[in-house]
Amino acid sequence: MENQNQWGEIEPSISAMSTFNPIRELLSTSQEKQPGQKSEQTLINLSLGDPTLYGNLKINKQGVDAVDEALKSFECNGYLPGMGKLEARQAIAQSYSNEEHVVDPSNVVLASGCSGALLLCITSLLNPGDNILIPKPGFSLYKTIASSYGIEYKTYNLLPEKQWEINLEELESLVDAKTKAILVNNPSNPCGSNYSKKHLLEIIAFCEKHRLPIIADEIYRDIVFSGEEFYPFYSLTNSVPVLTTGGLAKQFLVPGWRLGWVVVHDPLGNFEKVKRGLMALSNLILGPNSLIQGAIPKILNPTSDNTNFKAHLNLVLEKNAKVCEDALSSVEGLTVVKPQGAMYCMVVINTCNFKDIRNGYDFYHALKWEENVEILPGEVFDFPNSFRIVLAPPEDVMLEAAHRIKRFCERHRV
Amino acid sequence: MENQNQWGEIEPSISAMSTFNPIRELLSTSQEKQPGQKSEQTLINLSLGDPTLYGNLKINKQGVDAVDEALKSFECNGYLPGMGKLEARQAIAQSYSNEEHVVDPSNVVLASGCSGALLLCITSLLNPGDNILIPKPGFSLYKTIASSYGIEYKTYNLLPEKQWEINLEELESLVDAKTKAILVNNPSNPCGSNYSKKHLLEIIAFCEKHRLPIIADEIYRDIVFSGEEFYPFYSLTNSVPVLTTGGLAKQFLVPGWRLGWVVVHDPLGNFEKVKRGLMALSNLILGPNSLIQGAIPKILNPTSDNTNFKAHLNLVLEKNAKVCEDALSSVEGLTVVKPQGAMYCMVVINTCNFKDIRNGYDFYHALKWEENVEILPGEVFDFPNSFRIVLAPPEDVMLEAAHRIKRFCERHRV
Repeated sequence: MENQNQWGEIEPSISAMSTFNPIRELLSTSQEKQPGQKSEQTLINLSLGDPTLYGNLKINKQGVDAVDEALKSFECNGYLPGMGKLEARQAIAQSYSNEEHVVDPSNVVLASGCSGALLLCITSLLNPGDNILIPKPGFSLYKTIASSYGIEYKTYNLLPEKQWEINLEELESLVDAKTKAILVNNPSNPCGSNYSKKHLLEIIAFCEKHRLPIIADEIYRDIVFSGEEFYPFYSLTNSVPVLTTGGLAKQFLVPGWRLGWVVVHDPLGNFEKVKRGLMALSNLILGPNSLIQGAIPKILNPTSDNTNFKAHLNLVLEKNAKVCEDALSSVEGLTVVKPQGAMYCMVVINTCNFKDIRNGYDFYHALKWEENVEILPGEVFDFPNSFRIVLAPPEDVMLEAAHRIKRFCERHRV
Repeated sequence: MENQNQWGEIEPSISAMSTFNPIRELLSTSQEKQPGQKSEQTLINLSLGDPTLYGNLKINKQGVDAVDEALKSFECNGYLPGMGKLEARQAIAQSYSNEEHVVDPSNVVLASGCSGALLLCITSLLNPGDNILIPKPGFSLYKTIASSYGIEYKTYNLLPEKQWEINLEELESLVDAKTKAILVNNPSNPCGSNYSKKHLLEIIAFCEKHRLPIIADEIYRDIVFSGEEFYPFYSLTNSVPVLTTGGLAKQFLVPGWRLGWVVVHDPLGNFEKVKRGLMALSNLILGPNSLIQGAIPKILNPTSDNTNFKAHLNLVLEKNAKVCEDALSSVEGLTVVKPQGAMYCMVVINTCNFKDIRNGYDFYHALKWEENVEILPGEVFDFPNSFRIVLAPPEDVMLEAAHRIKRFCERHRV
């Protein structure tokens, strides 16, 4: 009965075929395409935004103890509500509350990482054929999610010469009847920018005018450098509905734990149905790991240890930002935009200064081949002729990387 | 500028509005609808399929130590490939391999719980408008996922008088040009059935005839009672492509950990594109928690401790099955189908034997109100006039529950 020719290739769904993650694709295929390295130097990996890679940055004792306690209690192994454990949602709500803004736990929905939170937000607000405004350069997952669900997107330009602020005039021209939300990422991946209160209020005025809800990807909240202050979107508006996404990944240095959340800001009550939609979608795969959910109240507990821990992280990143700036600003053909926060330094390549670097991909491949330094080409963030450096490694590694990049550029310049 | 009336209610997406989980809905609303209890007896909760509820069943030391080690190593906090950590996939592949069938780690994709694995399978195989065959009675999530994605489903009947085997004649009549897969759940939730090799081969012959791939939900694999043997689908066919879903949830008593997987069985190579689709979709939210992924090789390590642990679980469930059978088989108006595996006993209600119980919902509400025992009405599994009992509590609780149900039935019979 069994015949080798009866079946033939089975086609996967359109959704699966439309799901494309350019960062994962590049990193998983580049090694196959180019086995081995010309350079015999050790690899310096500055590509994935994973701060745990070098072991110099790790979650504090308070965080580890919290999970340990959850594990040993045997009380955090069972099913939890799709939107998350109440105590976890309370602790997150608390961390977003101050004297002026009190967040109710019923407005917090947990998700499998900030990626999962973004997926919840985008798919609860938009239907196939609707469009969402997303930043350029921007984190590639926004497109990956939209494409996977048949949702359209329009990219709005960030201006490197204005510290990556949004080109607001152009933004106006993008809105049409099918535009259902704008996604703003602040502090930004890949830009390393942190918006001023003034610019955030301009964006809010735009949303007010066009009645566009904001998806505020604030996974890097509070990761800002000297002289900078971080303003969460929700704290600046009493009218625009905001879905804020966040998580433990970056601030607590545990991206693999997949613990993210959505905080709903709905000052005028326009989001009642959307909230129900978020909750319904959260029941599809029943939220993040229960041990981490159980540990959240202790992880987030605002002790002095936590304050010092966060300050230390920001300091390490800021120092590395300074290393990159100092070393690369003077390199002919590169323009470094001074990082203000997050974990990244974005560098623009002026290709006419190079004899054989036509774009970010060329830079990426040649740098890896010759100097064994792995960055990400701006192309994966929809910003050609640039590259992104991750600022998380130990300072000596950062110095060595900057040195190798500089040497590489000198070798290739016209 | 801010005007209370400018916005109005914002509509969520059709997908969010179409996502409905009847079990979660029932359990979250029933308390609001009926605050307090007439009965002053303690609550006996036999509704959610969560074996950790009573504390009598918990993961073994080997499992706890494995996670503890991952936590303390600080080496399992970073991002992992969307399809999962290689060592975890290797260990899972190993656990599905024997002398006759060797599973390659490249055929294993991790997911956020078995729910996440089912979501991957269904959405990688079917487009909106396609249909999938699902069992009736059956786990409600199959419908929830399909509806959320605009995928259609057709239910096929399981026959209680034949130990919940599939009505194969009827099954034939359901297939049309848009039918792209059949989902079979064995051992079954809610039925507690375990199919014979003969019946599994009949299903495979059906799939062979209609060229239908199988999604085999085998989250309860190996949880079978005396005299029963569990046969995984993939081990019985050299032609039909099978996506097997599984996870740690039930066998290791950690449903909250959200660690599930898909194992691809593709003997004739029809699933190459589908495999790529699964991997692409796995990059959307980047898989389950990294600590648990890091712990998997030790959790699954086939030590004698693990063997005893699993045997103990099966014994507890089998004893409780016997308690239910013994107590309820003799009750007029109830038909108990002898459980063969999984964690459930399904009981059919012959409503004409009762004066005021018209369906499973009536039974559920009145039993909770009068006896403070919570079961699930068969209606949430698409099988009216029945109820499901979870077999995981301590034996004395099971005895007390059976006693209360019996008393309840006697009080309500005609």
